[in-house]
Amino acid sequence: MERVYNFSAGPAALPLEVLEQARDELVNWQGCGMSVMEMSHRGKEFMGIAAQAEADLRELMEIPAHYKVLFLQGGASLQFAMVPMNLLRGKASADYLNTGEWSKKAIKEAKKFCAVNIVASSEDRNFSYAPSQEQWQLDPNAAYLHYTPNETIGGVEIFWTPDTGAVPLVADMSSNILSRPIDVTRYGLIYAGAQKNIGPAGLTIVIVREDLLGQPLAGTPTMLDYKTHADNDSMYNTPPTFAIYMAGLVFKWLKRRGGLKAMEEYNIAKAKVLYDYLDSTDFYHCPTARENRSRMNVPFTLRDPSLDEAFLKGAKEHGLVQLKGHRSVGGMRASIYNAMPIEGVKALVEYMKAFEKQHG
Amino acid sequence: MERVYNFSAGPAALPLEVLEQARDELVNWQGCGMSVMEMSHRGKEFMGIAAQAEADLRELMEIPAHYKVLFLQGGASLQFAMVPMNLLRGKASADYLNTGEWSKKAIKEAKKFCAVNIVASSEDRNFSYAPSQEQWQLDPNAAYLHYTPNETIGGVEIFWTPDTGAVPLVADMSSNILSRPIDVTRYGLIYAGAQKNIGPAGLTIVIVREDLLGQPLAGTPTMLDYKTHADNDSMYNTPPTFAIYMAGLVFKWLKRRGGLKAMEEYNIAKAKVLYDYLDSTDFYHCPTARENRSRMNVPFTLRDPSLDEAFLKGAKEHGLVQLKGHRSVGGMRASIYNAMPIEGVKALVEYMKAFEKQHG
Repeated sequence: MERVYNFSAGPAALPLEVLEQARDELVNWQGCGMSVMEMSHRGKEFMGIAAQAEADLRELMEIPAHYKVLFLQGGASLQFAMVPMNLLRGKASADYLNTGEWSKKAIKEAKKFCAVNIVASSEDRNFSYAPSQEQWQLDPNAAYLHYTPNETIGGVEIFWTPDTGAVPLVADMSSNILSRPIDVTRYGLIYAGAQKNIGPAGLTIVIVREDLLGQPLAGTPTMLDYKTHADNDSMYNTPPTFAIYMAGLVFKWLKRRGGLKAMEEYNIAKAKVLYDYLDSTDFYHCPTARENRSRMNVPFTLRDPSLDEAFLKGAKEHGLVQLKGHRSVGGMRASIYNAMPIEGVKALVEYMKAFEKQHG
Repeated sequence: MERVYNFSAGPAALPLEVLEQARDELVNWQGCGMSVMEMSHRGKEFMGIAAQAEADLRELMEIPAHYKVLFLQGGASLQFAMVPMNLLRGKASADYLNTGEWSKKAIKEAKKFCAVNIVASSEDRNFSYAPSQEQWQLDPNAAYLHYTPNETIGGVEIFWTPDTGAVPLVADMSSNILSRPIDVTRYGLIYAGAQKNIGPAGLTIVIVREDLLGQPLAGTPTMLDYKTHADNDSMYNTPPTFAIYMAGLVFKWLKRRGGLKAMEEYNIAKAKVLYDYLDSTDFYHCPTARENRSRMNVPFTLRDPSLDEAFLKGAKEHGLVQLKGHRSVGGMRASIYNAMPIEGVKALVEYMKAFEKQHG
């Protein structure tokens, strides 16, 4: 089979030209005689690769100098623990917004370490929207406020930045980082698993304001203290070197594409192709509130769920794969991160139209 | 530059044919239309890759069914915390053998969680040997005994298996796993960062006896509880998929090479080439006790340290790289893991002889 359009929610599609470059230099990186995977993380070749990746990420996201950029492991799931372990800083409770399955996981883990105040929840309508900030019950004494600006399962995205005053704002941006510009200075800490918009699984990026570091809970493992990694430029121990290299190639690709403003425009146009079609038909249905429709993950159902299997089978025959919805909600989901070209979304809509014509 | 002989202590050389296969299928794995890096970890392609990797590792190491094999992240450094957090199981202290820098790091981290009884230490002779078991002061009430069968910096390897009776034996095998057969049933838990003998950095393998699971310390993060991963076949969250795939290719390569018995013979022959030469000259010196000479890491010094820089420069010109000793001890170190061919060691010795002739 030729290359397919891969709508997986993560690990997800990577830009073809990034993969081709990785292939071309896999055995011998830029004539140095070895693969990136074989390089000592303390050698000058890899130190250069890591420094360039950080510099490009800082440029893309306009990250100020008083923020540290950390290349870690363990995914968002480990951040669910590291955030309270590091950011409680003597306080007993933290604020959490609950907008879906990932919020719930973060909340459940935080409860191991502190009291959790749920500022608002959209569970009442099956996580199909995000409560506006007027509805939030903020605690001015909270150690921080945690939210998930994009929920991959419900397909709910929050496009505005919460205002939490002096309370540090923490965001799990695993599924929408780098999809549009954000103002990093509004955040205390941003984290993201790499496997959606950054690179391969096994790398987690943390962007954290320096003054929040250095007060971990008693008993925090050395490896779970952000300061360990901040003080050692993410080289306290061997980092996931190849994943960092791949992320660096993606950052270069984003710069060639024009940066995050250009990606935002492209992602708006891409999502519009799919949402416009979903709005034009009763054969398919998108459950998400209009103002929170994610540009990254588009869930939809067929009016007749007995056709689900035929839909997926036909899609695969057309080179459109990984469209099955998350096992917790069913239906379909098209994840259309940065690396999904608009041609892929158009091909999906053409297939959906043809399927509707055949079965509608 | 053509491919070099890479003597890095880790990340380290990988077998060329493994790298070539990874390159050939990087953009489109076995005709499925996507890269391994782009596969959902819950899709049938990747589930198959992971299951095959585990099956091959179990076959190579003869791992019995009552041991779980876990594919984790965070390296040995995170295991330094996970071991006490999971294996104390109500006890207040653990035994540790101190044979070098990696032992010391494990001990330092364990002290965050329990009392540590040092059963023996070789720090008195600069970690150049391993104390024999008759010298150990074992605590029969210890939760477990932890040791490091190969120390990469001192180049000290322990070829016998400690007898700890009913006390579970825990080994950091990061730097000698898969280099020779071991009897897994003698161990409670074995862990290894991948970046020396398994695959790329960012993957950590844990082999643990099932009955030791399920009693983590209060406050252990979900991601640091081995049972979380054991109960979910290492798919509780997104695992480091590409690193697991690479490890699987290395396991296949080891099987083609004849398995661990054949690798042991090869590694003995390889190390002999270098140690025999070191024993034949006064120009170089190997500080390690004869019975503990590591087959994986060979430290040596030049009689005249002012020649170090010229030695390293000339080596590089001969395609022999990463020979500089660890910054904590200086001198030279040749790491000759499984993937280093005997031709590489012979080329190193030829260079060393010529350098001696020129400068001796």
